[in-house]
Amino acid sequence: MSQFTPTERTTLHRMPKRAAYDRAVVHAILDEGLYCHVGFTVDDQPYVIPTIHARLDDRLYVHGSSASRMLRNLKQGVQMCVTVTILDGLVLARSAFHHSMNYRSALVLGMAHEVIDPQEKYDALKAVVDHVAPQRWDEVRWPNEQELKATSVLRLPLEEVSAKIRTGPPLDDEEDYQLSCWAGELPLRLTPQMPVADSRLAPTIAIPSYVSAYQRPHHPKESS
Amino acid sequence: MSQFTPTERTTLHRMPKRAAYDRAVVHAILDEGLYCHVGFTVDDQPYVIPTIHARLDDRLYVHGSSASRMLRNLKQGVQMCVTVTILDGLVLARSAFHHSMNYRSALVLGMAHEVIDPQEKYDALKAVVDHVAPQRWDEVRWPNEQELKATSVLRLPLEEVSAKIRTGPPLDDEEDYQLSCWAGELPLRLTPQMPVADSRLAPTIAIPSYVSAYQRPHHPKESS
Repeated sequence: MSQFTPTERTTLHRMPKRAAYDRAVVHAILDEGLYCHVGFTVDDQPYVIPTIHARLDDRLYVHGSSASRMLRNLKQGVQMCVTVTILDGLVLARSAFHHSMNYRSALVLGMAHEVIDPQEKYDALKAVVDHVAPQRWDEVRWPNEQELKATSVLRLPLEEVSAKIRTGPPLDDEEDYQLSCWAGELPLRLTPQMPVADSRLAPTIAIPSYVSAYQRPHHPKESS
Repeated sequence: MSQFTPTERTTLHRMPKRAAYDRAVVHAILDEGLYCHVGFTVDDQPYVIPTIHARLDDRLYVHGSSASRMLRNLKQGVQMCVTVTILDGLVLARSAFHHSMNYRSALVLGMAHEVIDPQEKYDALKAVVDHVAPQRWDEVRWPNEQELKATSVLRLPLEEVSAKIRTGPPLDDEEDYQLSCWAGELPLRLTPQMPVADSRLAPTIAIPSYVSAYQRPHHPKESS
């Protein structure tokens, strides 16, 4: 199935033309975004926490952190929203009102469960490392039993999902195009700087190319 | 008062040494971060939506979008969490377990209210434009009454606030320092690319320096 089915909760009422439910589009956003924001509610107070995620097929895994403490008392799972946002640039219009940003975001709603099965947990943690830096897993020391126990991972199925995308130039009111104000886009990109070797690193250890030439998988998608 | 008072809800239980409650540190994160993620709950389902914010003194303003629809039925306000995260880099350790990211995030909890007063709304919208691009406001067409009505702005007081910061190299287990794996930091920075002038822009209109030399206010803070 190449499309997620929009639900009442994932249907965009505002700017519906920015919505996308295409599976490949959603996957590309989840895969390119380095980290996510996890939302959950405790005693009527919502919390939004940044954490690292990874996708395996139609399953999203997130590092547990705060939410995992909740889960100890919620064996049936926890209602969660995971949002991944990639900022692509500023949109500078001729009027204050039409200023905007170009971005791609994916929103995943549903019931998250803590991953208990050791093999699934191991695979999820490998996926997280692969997500951040492909090839890295083969070079590092893998988690031992104690470390696996000390890490919590949550699984959220990709079922109720939507993406929201804005691309392109500012859209000004017709009468504003005559104004003498500069207008256009300022693209922004998350860019690697010079790597900093750990001070205890032996000088004989070369920097791997996946660090020195680091880049995210980049799949900009068109929208209207 | 230079510190926010930690509450039960803003006290970090995990990695408490990464917590910061210093007002200047929190303000710097909110001011540097271009956008935020807003969390709110509807029918037990949390939602996390990216939007633009701005700070004026100890008030945080966010563009209403989805949450503003809720507010029409909630005159007393809505429980909200606004989180701003700035990713500073990857932390590549010698073990999978100790991989991390360097980041600065600020989390604001509380009751948000829709801004009704026209002057406060105007000032908040100006603050949002100033937040994204200082000096821009003076060049653009300002919002008219109709546009002000079509825009919703929420106000969240900066009262229950915390920041979380990680900086520095990976911290490996002592026995792993002998491994022949590269380790260190890969700093990441949101970097402006070449501006793209709107296709209908008159060629006589020069690009302003706040676009051609765009940069965020950058205040990296130390932590342990």
